Amino acid sequence: MEKSAVYHQPCSAYAYPYDKDTMHIKIRTKKDDIQSVSFIYGDPFNFVKNEENKYKWISQRKYMIKVAQTNLHDYWFIETKPAFRRLQYGFVLISSEGESAFYGERGFSKLEKKTLISPDYFFKFPFLHEVDLFKAPEWVKSTVWYQIFPERFDNGNPSISPKNVLPWGSKNPGTEDFFGGDLQGIINHLDYLKDLGVNGIYLNPIFEAPTNHKYDTLNYYSIDPHFGDKETFRKLVQESHKRGIRIMLDAVFNHIGSQSKQWQDVVKNEEKSPYKEWFHIHSFPVTEGTNGNIEGKTTLSFDTFAFTPKMPKLNTANQEVQNYLLDIATYWIREFDIDGWRLDVANEVDHAFWKKFHHAVLKEKNDVYIVGEIWHDAWNWLQGDEFHSVMNYPLTQAIIDFFIEDKINAMELVSNLNQHFMKYMQNVNEVTFNLLDSHDTARILTRAKGNKKKVKQALAFLFAQSGSPCIYYGTEIGLDGDNDPLCRKCMIWDKKKQDEDMFLFTKKLIALRKKYQQILSNGRLKWILVDNQTRILTFSRNLGQQSLVFYFNQGEFDEEVPINKNGISYVNAWNETS
Amino acid sequence: MEKSAVYHQPCSAYAYPYDKDTMHIKIRTKKDDIQSVSFIYGDPFNFVKNEENKYKWISQRKYMIKVAQTNLHDYWFIETKPAFRRLQYGFVLISSEGESAFYGERGFSKLEKKTLISPDYFFKFPFLHEVDLFKAPEWVKSTVWYQIFPERFDNGNPSISPKNVLPWGSKNPGTEDFFGGDLQGIINHLDYLKDLGVNGIYLNPIFEAPTNHKYDTLNYYSIDPHFGDKETFRKLVQESHKRGIRIMLDAVFNHIGSQSKQWQDVVKNEEKSPYKEWFHIHSFPVTEGTNGNIEGKTTLSFDTFAFTPKMPKLNTANQEVQNYLLDIATYWIREFDIDGWRLDVANEVDHAFWKKFHHAVLKEKNDVYIVGEIWHDAWNWLQGDEFHSVMNYPLTQAIIDFFIEDKINAMELVSNLNQHFMKYMQNVNEVTFNLLDSHDTARILTRAKGNKKKVKQALAFLFAQSGSPCIYYGTEIGLDGDNDPLCRKCMIWDKKKQDEDMFLFTKKLIALRKKYQQILSNGRLKWILVDNQTRILTFSRNLGQQSLVFYFNQGEFDEEVPINKNGISYVNAWNETS
Repeated sequence: MEKSAVYHQPCSAYAYPYDKDTMHIKIRTKKDDIQSVSFIYGDPFNFVKNEENKYKWISQRKYMIKVAQTNLHDYWFIETKPAFRRLQYGFVLISSEGESAFYGERGFSKLEKKTLISPDYFFKFPFLHEVDLFKAPEWVKSTVWYQIFPERFDNGNPSISPKNVLPWGSKNPGTEDFFGGDLQGIINHLDYLKDLGVNGIYLNPIFEAPTNHKYDTLNYYSIDPHFGDKETFRKLVQESHKRGIRIMLDAVFNHIGSQSKQWQDVVKNEEKSPYKEWFHIHSFPVTEGTNGNIEGKTTLSFDTFAFTPKMPKLNTANQEVQNYLLDIATYWIREFDIDGWRLDVANEVDHAFWKKFHHAVLKEKNDVYIVGEIWHDAWNWLQGDEFHSVMNYPLTQAIIDFFIEDKINAMELVSNLNQHFMKYMQNVNEVTFNLLDSHDTARILTRAKGNKKKVKQALAFLFAQSGSPCIYYGTEIGLDGDNDPLCRKCMIWDKKKQDEDMFLFTKKLIALRKKYQQILSNGRLKWILVDNQTRILTFSRNLGQQSLVFYFNQGEFDEEVPINKNGISYVNAWNETS
Repeated sequence: MEKSAVYHQPCSAYAYPYDKDTMHIKIRTKKDDIQSVSFIYGDPFNFVKNEENKYKWISQRKYMIKVAQTNLHDYWFIETKPAFRRLQYGFVLISSEGESAFYGERGFSKLEKKTLISPDYFFKFPFLHEVDLFKAPEWVKSTVWYQIFPERFDNGNPSISPKNVLPWGSKNPGTEDFFGGDLQGIINHLDYLKDLGVNGIYLNPIFEAPTNHKYDTLNYYSIDPHFGDKETFRKLVQESHKRGIRIMLDAVFNHIGSQSKQWQDVVKNEEKSPYKEWFHIHSFPVTEGTNGNIEGKTTLSFDTFAFTPKMPKLNTANQEVQNYLLDIATYWIREFDIDGWRLDVANEVDHAFWKKFHHAVLKEKNDVYIVGEIWHDAWNWLQGDEFHSVMNYPLTQAIIDFFIEDKINAMELVSNLNQHFMKYMQNVNEVTFNLLDSHDTARILTRAKGNKKKVKQALAFLFAQSGSPCIYYGTEIGLDGDNDPLCRKCMIWDKKKQDEDMFLFTKKLIALRKKYQQILSNGRLKWILVDNQTRILTFSRNLGQQSLVFYFNQGEFDEEVPINKNGISYVNAWNETS
């Protein structure tokens, strides 16, 4: 038995409350090393007198299920509903060679009666409190998102376009170009989006800012004048809500734009500025430094996003800054009834601030969805009191590596995905914000070198996972584009230039997603066939008596997939034949 | 290379800020499997142009130090001060057989240039925020605690003793006995405690309650009348502070006494009681159930501590309960200037409540010490926004197993301790509340079957560790006693009956602890000789150019311990000889 590989941590993604009655428990062992794991558990205070008139701790024993395998590990799982919401538990492992051992809070012990009846050797989950549960808004699970980069969706009101506006789609976008996209442009296409089937829109920043991407905010309280005004935005929210579409905005709270009145005051008044504590300033006067690199200058006298002088970092530990940002966060909910906040550069802002943000925002409206921009392992922002979700780029990466760029084989895909899913609690996986591309990456069609079949597979695979999937504007009509700024091309509205086949495919996928939403949100994932040779992948999502079975053939050849129809009633979900 | 054993988790005890400039990074590998680990690190946004005019990520490389070994694992450590408070990092492992591999956020990769320059493969620590630091009051590190069970320390005011009071020390205590100990009794002996050298007193509950232990609170706003009144308590705090002694009280917030007005109102008025939401009630009328076990009755119609009907569990998610308890928590600081709160059954109260508690208490007085009663792995209460410390029973257990009960050998002791220390951040280990016994355990002298030498070794070893050590009243004069109620015997004040030798030993130990406090708080622990045969244990604590070296001989025979005096200036700290 490879004891050094065994891992379990109480009060983590290895032992957490799934709902107010249910605990989930996992344990990790070396791949193929262990033949069975049983779970020994009971209430920590439940003792009864035995024959010798001595009190004895009461425990039960159940087999755990092997739910996931990676290239290095097996993961074992069990669900339990402790009668008194308290849990004391340990594990009995039996290796492939028949060796047995007890594993608990004190590590490995001999499997003997003495150990099994000694509470000291066991792990504890002291009390399941509903208030400490990770809870995301229920609507998120049935939402299919559509991300819009407003400057590039449609120009609905040319009278407010920037002076230097370029004709729509007249060229590939450069970093400084404006094409006049605005909020009215989005309103004009809400019926298009409803027809497509999406029921959530994530908007890149819309507050006043000089750039086309608006991540360098000037004023968080006003809509950028080239995008519209508050009345246009109110109409956008209302018209969206009428169509059952929710609206999520982008909050850029890590930094502010260097043209903002706050930063300009610091530049002008230096140490006398009332805003000097709003930033992380190392010395006055604030200087932009000398040596530039890809991200800016490393000799800045103040902290910025990356090394970008245009984006001075806000001091979110400062009470005034907190009051300012929390008022903004609640203002747009209170006054305009938005449904979600996507948080830019979320991992570089302090946890203490996000906890206050979570509290303030949910107090204003109790089902707002909070999504952090975190590209990597985000476990400690997803404990229930900060974010509901993150932009799930590790999933993106695994899908692209296999379906788009052929960098990994089928087993590596499964290993990478299993490892990622095992990092988070199931509650979290059920509401992650899943995407193939965004304003920050090359577009999926371009990564696939124009191979539509690959894009369709990747999209279908994305839609087959837990979480709520997002389509980056234009993917549904075959928009392409390399890394920023090319991934921010103007949306194509000329029907003749749209890819109708891709549109119908996407629409169908969205419809299926909604039809089978419950099983796709909550169903257990089971890998059935994972074939490196043929690059065929078969898996099912299972909930109660229902299963959805998926067949992906990412190989070069057509293959017959055997379907076991014995005693099972089934339909072909894609073609609606039986 | 046993890759399945390798473990690292960003934003955890494996990667955390130690102070506002410094990060600590650890990685775990299989015992004796890896010959070297190097740390590859840099700022995530720091790129420079290389010869081919392409931007390249700048990283550095340093060897990590193997700081701890357990029976299964090696732990490697490095400290780094990231210039821009951001860190991107990975590890290069070389196995004993010379195999090398890169380990990062995506798991293991081939050690090749492509990997080393690809930020995607690296772990991140996005930004070091001072506000998110784990910070405990600085005074805790130089504090030696003395725990007093007030009913048994001294009867300083017989006029307020309970009617059924027994003559002091006239018998071994039963669970229901009263001996008349009170606050005046403590005041009377403050000079004794100052002479002993302790500078912190932890008091078991002193609020009004029917039992002798007072864990079933009647009224959190009044001092138990048999212990004194608010003026006596104010005097106790003031007289203690005059002598440089801090006072920590016991907050029993998980449950209230069943005789409290709140619970009695529920019993009387049932669903009409204004307090019905203060508890976890499953059905009315509240009944105490039928089937008793060691802890009470499992058919209760309400939640309690364990299954004890006398201790109905408070609903700390209820706003009124929160206001009530937080006012109590701040009242005793505001009005009486107490220095610490020890939190009873802390792990069964919700995290959300403790975060509010932490905030409220530190806002009232910014250096109050918060210690949770948690007997097991408490990592997620020790993240910086709940507790500063826990009662460190896993350390107790390891010391007793080796020094007192000879259950484990020297290497097992070291393994158990290393494993425990590695679980927490160093900031946490520096302020844990370390103890050998308490009102909840048998006394150390009794566990040692009266063997004083063993007790002295265990005490000395406890004092040699990071954290702040606590002496349970009477240990210093040889008080013994088995499990509750026998561990709560009356303090012996008759000099002739006190163990003077133990007193002098304890006093000397405390003095040494204070003299070498800095190195004992912050010095790195290094095991030098760990001999299972002779049961000899040698280790050092090292800080800067100073080392304290400890020799413990827990075996049967006297042994000569070789001291390498070459070129080192040293003193015998115990005998003050050189």
